[in-house]
Amino acid sequence: MTLSKTNVLFDKILLVTAATDEIREVPEYAAYYDTGKNLLIMKDAYVSVRDGLIIYIGLDRVSAEAAFAGDNFEIYNGKNKLVWPTMANTHGHIPMTLMRNQTDDHNLHDWLFNVIFPMEAHLTPEHVYHGSMLGMAEMIRHGTGAAADMYYFSDSVAQAARQSGFRLNVCCDGKLEGSDGKSHVSDNELASFKERWEGGSEGLIRTSLLVHSIYLYEPYLYEELAAAARKHDMYVQVHISETSKEVEDCLAKYGKRPPQQLDKFGLLDGHVIAAHCVHLDDDDRALLAARKVTVAHNPASNFKLGSGFADIAAMVQAGIHVSLGTDGAASNNNLDLYQEMRLAGYLAKGLTGDASVLPAGQLIQMATLNGMRGLGFDRVGCLLPGWKADLQIVDIDHPAMQPLGDPEAALVYSCSSGNVESMMVDGVWLMYKNDLKTIDEEKTIAEAVSYSNKLS
Amino acid sequence: MTLSKTNVLFDKILLVTAATDEIREVPEYAAYYDTGKNLLIMKDAYVSVRDGLIIYIGLDRVSAEAAFAGDNFEIYNGKNKLVWPTMANTHGHIPMTLMRNQTDDHNLHDWLFNVIFPMEAHLTPEHVYHGSMLGMAEMIRHGTGAAADMYYFSDSVAQAARQSGFRLNVCCDGKLEGSDGKSHVSDNELASFKERWEGGSEGLIRTSLLVHSIYLYEPYLYEELAAAARKHDMYVQVHISETSKEVEDCLAKYGKRPPQQLDKFGLLDGHVIAAHCVHLDDDDRALLAARKVTVAHNPASNFKLGSGFADIAAMVQAGIHVSLGTDGAASNNNLDLYQEMRLAGYLAKGLTGDASVLPAGQLIQMATLNGMRGLGFDRVGCLLPGWKADLQIVDIDHPAMQPLGDPEAALVYSCSSGNVESMMVDGVWLMYKNDLKTIDEEKTIAEAVSYSNKLS
Repeated sequence: MTLSKTNVLFDKILLVTAATDEIREVPEYAAYYDTGKNLLIMKDAYVSVRDGLIIYIGLDRVSAEAAFAGDNFEIYNGKNKLVWPTMANTHGHIPMTLMRNQTDDHNLHDWLFNVIFPMEAHLTPEHVYHGSMLGMAEMIRHGTGAAADMYYFSDSVAQAARQSGFRLNVCCDGKLEGSDGKSHVSDNELASFKERWEGGSEGLIRTSLLVHSIYLYEPYLYEELAAAARKHDMYVQVHISETSKEVEDCLAKYGKRPPQQLDKFGLLDGHVIAAHCVHLDDDDRALLAARKVTVAHNPASNFKLGSGFADIAAMVQAGIHVSLGTDGAASNNNLDLYQEMRLAGYLAKGLTGDASVLPAGQLIQMATLNGMRGLGFDRVGCLLPGWKADLQIVDIDHPAMQPLGDPEAALVYSCSSGNVESMMVDGVWLMYKNDLKTIDEEKTIAEAVSYSNKLS
Repeated sequence: MTLSKTNVLFDKILLVTAATDEIREVPEYAAYYDTGKNLLIMKDAYVSVRDGLIIYIGLDRVSAEAAFAGDNFEIYNGKNKLVWPTMANTHGHIPMTLMRNQTDDHNLHDWLFNVIFPMEAHLTPEHVYHGSMLGMAEMIRHGTGAAADMYYFSDSVAQAARQSGFRLNVCCDGKLEGSDGKSHVSDNELASFKERWEGGSEGLIRTSLLVHSIYLYEPYLYEELAAAARKHDMYVQVHISETSKEVEDCLAKYGKRPPQQLDKFGLLDGHVIAAHCVHLDDDDRALLAARKVTVAHNPASNFKLGSGFADIAAMVQAGIHVSLGTDGAASNNNLDLYQEMRLAGYLAKGLTGDASVLPAGQLIQMATLNGMRGLGFDRVGCLLPGWKADLQIVDIDHPAMQPLGDPEAALVYSCSSGNVESMMVDGVWLMYKNDLKTIDEEKTIAEAVSYSNKLS
C-alpha cells in the first residue's frame, strides 16, 4: 500500500482522448485529430509518464525514451490495449455503498423516509470511512479516478481518498447550531476543513460547500451559504430539479424555479456542480449555461428512482457543461461510469428519437475532461504532454470488444468495466494488471460488510 | 474443444432462481421461496448436476452426494459464488458482430441503407460462421446460454451453435423464387432445414420460420408463411412495431396496426417470438397476450436507434409473456443480457415514474425462464431437480457486489458480465473459471476480425 509515482513507457498502445484547444494547436497531432469526433486517436502510440506527468505522446520510440532524460522507467506492453483518461464521477454519496442492494424497488418518499433515514441514524465516522474505501475500490476497478462526494462525516471520506490516492472533491457541511437555536454557516469550520484537506494534498483533494437543494433550508441560510462560498472561494455541490415535485414546490414557495431561485440567493455565482437537473425549461438551461454551472447527469439513478428523463441533448445545445455521475450506491446500485456514459447516450437518442445526437466522442468528453474540469482538477482528463498522468488501460482482446471498429464507440457501447486492467492517478498505479495497489481489497470488503451489518 | 457432460457438486453456494408452479408445490423448498419476489433463494446450498440434469438442490450434503449414485463427480467450491440459470437472448442477428462499432450514431434509414446493406452485400457463409462463433463466445462470457437468431446463411449460424454447445433457435428463410418470378415458401427447404438441425441436436437447436416484419413482403407471401408455420409446426420469429413509421405505414396500407394485420394473416396462431413491440396500444397488447406471443424486448437497441420506449410494465400488466434480447451487435454494440435486464428495469421505472414497477425478481424471470420458454427450450431457465443443467456461476467477491444485500438486486443492478466466472449448458462447461471450453477464443477473434475486414 504505497503511493509512489512510477515512470512508465507505454509501448505501442492505442490512445484515445477528448481534444482540447491545446491539442488542436499542436502540429504533430494534427494527423490524429478527428475534427468531427473532437477526439485524438493514435494507433501504436508511445506514451511516456514521468513523475506524475505525461511527458511524451507520439509515434517515435527514441523521443519517448529520451523524454525520461536518463531516469529509470518500466515498460507497459500496449499490445491489444487501449489507453484513455480516467473518468470523473461528478455526483455521489460514496459511503452509501454500505446500503447497496438493500433498498430497491421503493418509490422515492418511501425509500428515503422508511429505508434510508432509519439506516443513516446508525452512522458513525467509521461507517463512513469503510463505506468510502469500498466505493473507491469499486471506482478504481471501474476506471474512475476522481469523484465528488456529498455526505456526512466528510473527514472520513477525505481520509479514504488520501489513503487510496484517489482524486476527490468533498463537501463540507459547515453548519453549526447558533445561539438562536438555528443552523448557521461557520467560517471557522469551512476554513479549517478546506485547509485540512486541500493543504498538502498535491492537488488531489478539493473541497466544496454542501448546499443540499432548494428545498431543505430556510431562506436566511441560503444567503449565508452564498456569502460563505464567495468568502472562502469554495466550490458548491447542490441537487437541482431532480424531481418534478421539487420544481412545483419551489414555484409554490418562491414563485421561481429552482435554478432561478438559487441564482437569486447568489448561489450560482462561483464554481457550481449541479446534480440531476432532470426538470429544466429553456430559461433554466440558459441560466445554467450563462453561470457556467457543471451539470452532473446521473441517468441510472434518475431512471431507477423514476425521477424523469433529463434532456442532455438540449443542455448541450444550450451550451451547458455536462458531466456524468453515479449518485449513491443505494439508488444505482453501483459506481460504474462506463454504465452512466452508455446510458447517457441511450437516453439522449431515445428521448429525441434521433440516433445521431450525442455521438460517442462527446460522451467520452463528458466522462473525462468535462468531469475533471467540473471537479476543479486542472490539466486532468485529457492525454497530452504536460497534463497529469491520470489514465486507464483497457484490455480490448475480448470477444465483446472485437472487431474493435471505432475505438470511441467501442469504449462507450461495447466496453464494460471488467475490461479495465490498470489505472493510475497522478502517476501512481491504483490498479496494476487487475490488482489494487493502494487498497487492501479483501480487508476493505470485509470491513464494509461488517459496518453495513451495523446499520440495522 | 469437447462437448462432454461433467458431473459436478456445487458446494455451499448461493442459489437464486425464478420460481415456477413446480417450485411452489415442493414442500422442502417452501422455506426458501419468497412469494413477493417469486424467487427461490437458498444460501449455502448444495447443487448436484449429473448427466446434463440437475438432480439435487438443498442443504443436505449427504443427499447431494447420494444423488450421484456412485458416479464420479467434481466439486465446485461455492464460497463467494452465486449460481443462477443461464440467460436467454430472444432476439438478435448474431453474425452482425462483424459490424460492431462501425455503424454508430446514424439514424435508422441512413444506418440501414448507407452503412449496413453495402456491408451485407459482401457476406458469405464463412463470414456468417465466424461472426456467429464470435457472438457465441461473447454470449458465453456474459452468462447467456441460448439465443434466437434471424439472419442470412442460417446453416452457418446453426453450425457454430452445434460446435460450441450453445442453445439456438435459428430462423430458416425458406423462400425460393418460383416459376412466376416471385418468392414462394418452399416446404422442402423448411422440412430439410428443420430435420437437419433439430434432428440429433439433443434439444439444443430449435428452428423458426423467418417472417421479417409486416412491411417487407406482399400479402400472398404472408398467407403462405402462415400456412407453412402451421404445416411444419415451426416457431415464427418476427419484428413487430419497432418504429412508429412501421405502425403508420401498416395502418395506411392495411387499415390495421401490425399485430392485428399479422393476426389476420394467421401468423400469430402458433409459437411466435415478436421482437421490439415498441409502439403498441391497448388492443395490440390484449391481442399479443391472447395469442401467447413471446415479446423480445430489446431496450439497448431501441434506445440507441431512437426507436422509442417500449412500455414493458403495461405489457406485463396485460399478461404478455416478456423476455429480453440484445438485437444485433451493429445496433447495440454488444450481446450482454446483464445490460438488457438492467435497462429493462430502468426504462420501466423511468417511463412510469414508479420505482416499484418491474422489481428485480421479475426481471430475472424475463431474462431466464421467460426467454427459454419463448425459444422453445423445455425445463430450462430455472434451477430445480429434473431440469436441465443450464447455469452460470457469478463471483460475488468484488467491490461492486458487496455488501451483497438482496441477491436479486445484486444480479440486476450491481453485477456486470465481467463477474461471470463459469457457465454450463446441458451439463457441458462452455466456460470454466474464465476459460472458454468449446471455443478457441483467440482463433475465433482473429478469424472474425479478418472476415470483418472483408466487408468493405
